[in-house]
Amino acid sequence: MTPKTLNDCQSLDANDPLRGLKSQFCLPAGVIYLDGNSLGVLPASAAARVSAVVNDEWGEGLIRSWNSAGWFEAPRRVGNKIARLIGAGIDEVVATDSTSVNLYKVLSAALNLVRHDAPQRKTIVSERSNFPTDLYIAEALCRERGCSLKLIEPDELAAALTPDVAVLMLTHVNYRTGAMHDMRAVTAAAHSAGILTVWDLAHSAGAVPVDLNGSGADFAVGCGYKYLNGGPGAPAFVWVAPRHADRFWQPLAGWWGHAAPFAFTPGYQPAPGIARYLCGTQPIISLAALDCGVDTVLAAEPMGGMSALRTKSLALTDLFIELVEARCAGQGLTLVTPREHAQRGSQVCLARTDGAYAIVQALIARGVIGDFRAGDAGNHPDILRFGFTPLYIGFEDVWNAVEHLKQVLDSGEWQRSEFNRKHAVT
Amino acid sequence: MTPKTLNDCQSLDANDPLRGLKSQFCLPAGVIYLDGNSLGVLPASAAARVSAVVNDEWGEGLIRSWNSAGWFEAPRRVGNKIARLIGAGIDEVVATDSTSVNLYKVLSAALNLVRHDAPQRKTIVSERSNFPTDLYIAEALCRERGCSLKLIEPDELAAALTPDVAVLMLTHVNYRTGAMHDMRAVTAAAHSAGILTVWDLAHSAGAVPVDLNGSGADFAVGCGYKYLNGGPGAPAFVWVAPRHADRFWQPLAGWWGHAAPFAFTPGYQPAPGIARYLCGTQPIISLAALDCGVDTVLAAEPMGGMSALRTKSLALTDLFIELVEARCAGQGLTLVTPREHAQRGSQVCLARTDGAYAIVQALIARGVIGDFRAGDAGNHPDILRFGFTPLYIGFEDVWNAVEHLKQVLDSGEWQRSEFNRKHAVT
Repeated sequence: MTPKTLNDCQSLDANDPLRGLKSQFCLPAGVIYLDGNSLGVLPASAAARVSAVVNDEWGEGLIRSWNSAGWFEAPRRVGNKIARLIGAGIDEVVATDSTSVNLYKVLSAALNLVRHDAPQRKTIVSERSNFPTDLYIAEALCRERGCSLKLIEPDELAAALTPDVAVLMLTHVNYRTGAMHDMRAVTAAAHSAGILTVWDLAHSAGAVPVDLNGSGADFAVGCGYKYLNGGPGAPAFVWVAPRHADRFWQPLAGWWGHAAPFAFTPGYQPAPGIARYLCGTQPIISLAALDCGVDTVLAAEPMGGMSALRTKSLALTDLFIELVEARCAGQGLTLVTPREHAQRGSQVCLARTDGAYAIVQALIARGVIGDFRAGDAGNHPDILRFGFTPLYIGFEDVWNAVEHLKQVLDSGEWQRSEFNRKHAVT
Repeated sequence: MTPKTLNDCQSLDANDPLRGLKSQFCLPAGVIYLDGNSLGVLPASAAARVSAVVNDEWGEGLIRSWNSAGWFEAPRRVGNKIARLIGAGIDEVVATDSTSVNLYKVLSAALNLVRHDAPQRKTIVSERSNFPTDLYIAEALCRERGCSLKLIEPDELAAALTPDVAVLMLTHVNYRTGAMHDMRAVTAAAHSAGILTVWDLAHSAGAVPVDLNGSGADFAVGCGYKYLNGGPGAPAFVWVAPRHADRFWQPLAGWWGHAAPFAFTPGYQPAPGIARYLCGTQPIISLAALDCGVDTVLAAEPMGGMSALRTKSLALTDLFIELVEARCAGQGLTLVTPREHAQRGSQVCLARTDGAYAIVQALIARGVIGDFRAGDAGNHPDILRFGFTPLYIGFEDVWNAVEHLKQVLDSGEWQRSEFNRKHAVT
């Protein structure tokens, strides 16, 4: 097949039914932003909305805004919007706290369920390559509960579903590789083995179609500041299958999860359903920005919603892979992300044995923002990571990004010392 | 003593060395805001700062702002500012999560300490009248740990420090009554009995002088959106005595509390000191507003800081009590807040057997914003609660507030049906 040309890419953009969605965003001039999997782009509506929350709701309304501006309802209202993106029902999701804190809640609740129903099961299984905070939360909880955390490689999953396992905790789309699990099949296998599933949707919500209820999943958490475009450190979200939601407390039993938070009674009575997964007062200003971010994804609904976004996302990542392999051949780049559509999230990761960090820095200096993930001494190489958010990335962007990558490699400009000084990057 | 007059109050304002601090705030026209103990007023600097975070740091800087705009450091940077208000040292405080979540962290850590040092101690003691979310968090944790929560009345404190007690968990200034504990004396008594102390500073930080290190306290948490003026649902804060900080994990062991969060290693290694009390990514926009709020309190440092604010706060609450008792005598209002300065926070609460809710609503309709706290069938009457933030409340405000209260009571206007329809109020 003949590789695509710049003209081909421009034609694809011209015929893209989602091309109008880009106008929802404030993209800096001269930037091709391939890091929406780390921090989504600013929605154009957010500045005015945040300003209204600060000046009108806080400044003028003051304490009255808890009622008059709907602050109390915000975690549920935003949660209900997120629910539409992940196959959850009304009143099944709340937007609150951080992904790590929410994972602690659902993992605790899952262990409580198992302690009651199958007390001999005391192992949490996860992948060694899972996002580390998920493993840290599980590790700490295991210490408290006398459970153990077993870490496996992806190809060991089937064999790991043994009778001692209580919970299978997976990130749906791997942050390093972009590899995606089949949520329905994995959940079914886990359930057949008597195991509950906890899914982290950090790289899935707003990125790929998710059907939590259709998949039979048990618990899920996810991130507000990646593909949901909620802003830096936006509140995260949490979902619990309705069949489990009322069975147990989660341990962060704060007043916002109480059945009657303003009765100020000394004994805890959990609210019914997902509301009991709320804990303390939420950062309303940040939550308003998240609300704007979620709206940018929901804006695709008239054009087919997540299904249409997925079609474009796969076309973008297919194109990126095709162009890199055609135009940067012989430059030592190896595709890490699966070629199979069913196994790919909305990102493409390339491994390189040397220079990956500096190449990413050189690209950033050119306005092509991706990120770097360090490998380790074992099986994991250094990675260049590129996220493709179909809401604001087009086919010409992909062409231009690969052109910059080709120039950075061909010229050797990445070897300059300025690109080799390391600092922390998410 | 002759009660003060409006003229007296105006003179007090004219001679108030802190009067200039009010210009730091955006106060709505026609409002006397006596609810800063629930939600502090908008700092004038916050709108521009939040706008800069949204438009420049997020919009233009995007992912690069984690480094270039200091987002990573924000919880520690703001924590170090709060430390100056509560008698804590540098690198002993972080601004993060909610008060409830932070209480769970420190209470868990305290129980871990005791489990190691004195495993026979399995009781948490607190006050029945503590803010309910504190009791809920303790109750949930006790369920997990096989501990018990014992609730007492304030006058039972000395007798409750028995050999089975692990932790004494108190709110320094009671949210309902404004009664303040002697932190140093209570901590000493607890320590003499082998008991650790956990202090909730929700109604103390920015309201009264606090000396955590000088008092020998063990753990503390507090709220960002009350006297620290951090905005609705602003991140809270957490402090751990340096002698305890490195001894144990807290269970919410997320990546922000890891010694090397960007090494992405699968095993948790807690950061030294208070940083291990961080968990997940923080809501940066809300945190920026909190930063502005804390600055409004630190702005008093050249005039004497918390000590000068305390002097004015006591003068304001003394005046309010004096005027209410002189001008609203015979109206069924009973002072709930202690008269003794050493036992009083920065609020005044008045009990009334009937109509308290409607009186508060009638005052709000007149622009005098206090709040209502329901009583119960037992010892606790309905309460009208008025917070006095010396940064933006003056003596004439106190005069005018009492004048409105007098008019509402004298006229019986509070009996109108519009003031008797209840809705949720924090």
